[in-house]
Amino acid sequence: MPMKAISSHTDYQYRVEVCHTPGQFPLYKQDAGIVVVIDILRATSAMVAAFHHGVKDIIPVATVEEARKYIGMPGHVAAAERNGEVVEGFPVGNSPLAFKAMDLKGKTIVISTTNGTQAINIGKDAKQLVIGAFLNLTALTDWLLRQNDNILLLCSGWRDKFSLEDSVFAGAVMDRLLDSGKFGVEEDSSIASKYLYMAARDNFMSILKAAPRRKRLQQLQLLDDVKYCLTPDQATVIPVLRGDRLVPLET
Amino acid sequence: MPMKAISSHTDYQYRVEVCHTPGQFPLYKQDAGIVVVIDILRATSAMVAAFHHGVKDIIPVATVEEARKYIGMPGHVAAAERNGEVVEGFPVGNSPLAFKAMDLKGKTIVISTTNGTQAINIGKDAKQLVIGAFLNLTALTDWLLRQNDNILLLCSGWRDKFSLEDSVFAGAVMDRLLDSGKFGVEEDSSIASKYLYMAARDNFMSILKAAPRRKRLQQLQLLDDVKYCLTPDQATVIPVLRGDRLVPLET
Repeated sequence: MPMKAISSHTDYQYRVEVCHTPGQFPLYKQDAGIVVVIDILRATSAMVAAFHHGVKDIIPVATVEEARKYIGMPGHVAAAERNGEVVEGFPVGNSPLAFKAMDLKGKTIVISTTNGTQAINIGKDAKQLVIGAFLNLTALTDWLLRQNDNILLLCSGWRDKFSLEDSVFAGAVMDRLLDSGKFGVEEDSSIASKYLYMAARDNFMSILKAAPRRKRLQQLQLLDDVKYCLTPDQATVIPVLRGDRLVPLET
Repeated sequence: MPMKAISSHTDYQYRVEVCHTPGQFPLYKQDAGIVVVIDILRATSAMVAAFHHGVKDIIPVATVEEARKYIGMPGHVAAAERNGEVVEGFPVGNSPLAFKAMDLKGKTIVISTTNGTQAINIGKDAKQLVIGAFLNLTALTDWLLRQNDNILLLCSGWRDKFSLEDSVFAGAVMDRLLDSGKFGVEEDSSIASKYLYMAARDNFMSILKAAPRRKRLQQLQLLDDVKYCLTPDQATVIPVLRGDRLVPLET
């Protein structure tokens, strides 16, 4: 796979760029009207899964304490994860398969996670903030292709460090948007994501082997969760931020 | 190029990791004893070229004003670059070919650049700080392989954003260090660099086409400079920081 120009189009109308970590958001936000928050393992995957299984809305909160107030509240599910594990006292963390197994219909989830909910907080002033995961890849990219605005793919990373699966997913979204000719890229970070996607696309699970950090999730016996999170197009819902909560986007 | 485990060794003695931008250095420095500062286009390439052509030492300074004090001082060459161009009033910026064309034997260069000298300043508290570029790739990696310490490859980036050529070079260094089995990686940022190098290694110049930002250097008619900066092993010198200045490492 020799490196070559990743798009032959130079007359694009809008930009799609990748920010690899929340901490770098101020450097990349520029004129981005739409921010897509990405935390493949596992916050944004869990959010898409939850909406797919009938949840009414999701309130992302920064701290465990905020989420804790909702434990036992009727109509609410309090969820908190830190370092890949469910926080003590909570019924659930950020496992999409755990959400799938619960009765979520019509309920409100209040969730705090290590990385994903922080990224949502950082990007919340965008004109539109939506949630991306392999689970809703095609629905998301189809919708993005219809938008007339600059797009920033915001990776949640891991404790503000680069995360391979988030960047690979950003490259997957970009791959489809660049093909249209409507969107173009300027940033090296974006080009890097695209190449990482090209290296990973034939076998997303292989990134587990490439990345020692993922061994932690394996040790936590979350391999089924990881496989689910890396499987494209299990859902068509696109969560969008309205005020303080995520709701399903009306498309 | 399917993504797979990048090293079969799990019993390595030391780590070699990549930090993509100076701003992220606090997150990655950890227990790194050796920091390699990388600014392929063009500060660290120019530094290697200058030593190769006989310069005695190089004082990297953060501001143009500091460098300006040395204009016209006997035995000194004042150099300053901002945004790819020589700063007004200075005889030279960060062009390795311009350094090559000057009589530098025994002289001291005082240099301030947009990205590279900032990265040196950020990493200066490391046990050892050395300078890396394609120009000294083999000499640098041969020396690194003999060290018994953790290594951090610190990319200078572009205004604290991700830079493709810096990350590709970091991947090239890592590729050789991982092969030894003595060094291993833990960080996703490192794995990403390795994959980017694998995509680029057959044609470093192709990254020019992939990366719109490099068009600026093309517009500045610096293509010869860029080609030189991307050509491995033009020199064997390894610049090392001693106090406030870089000198050739005695190997």
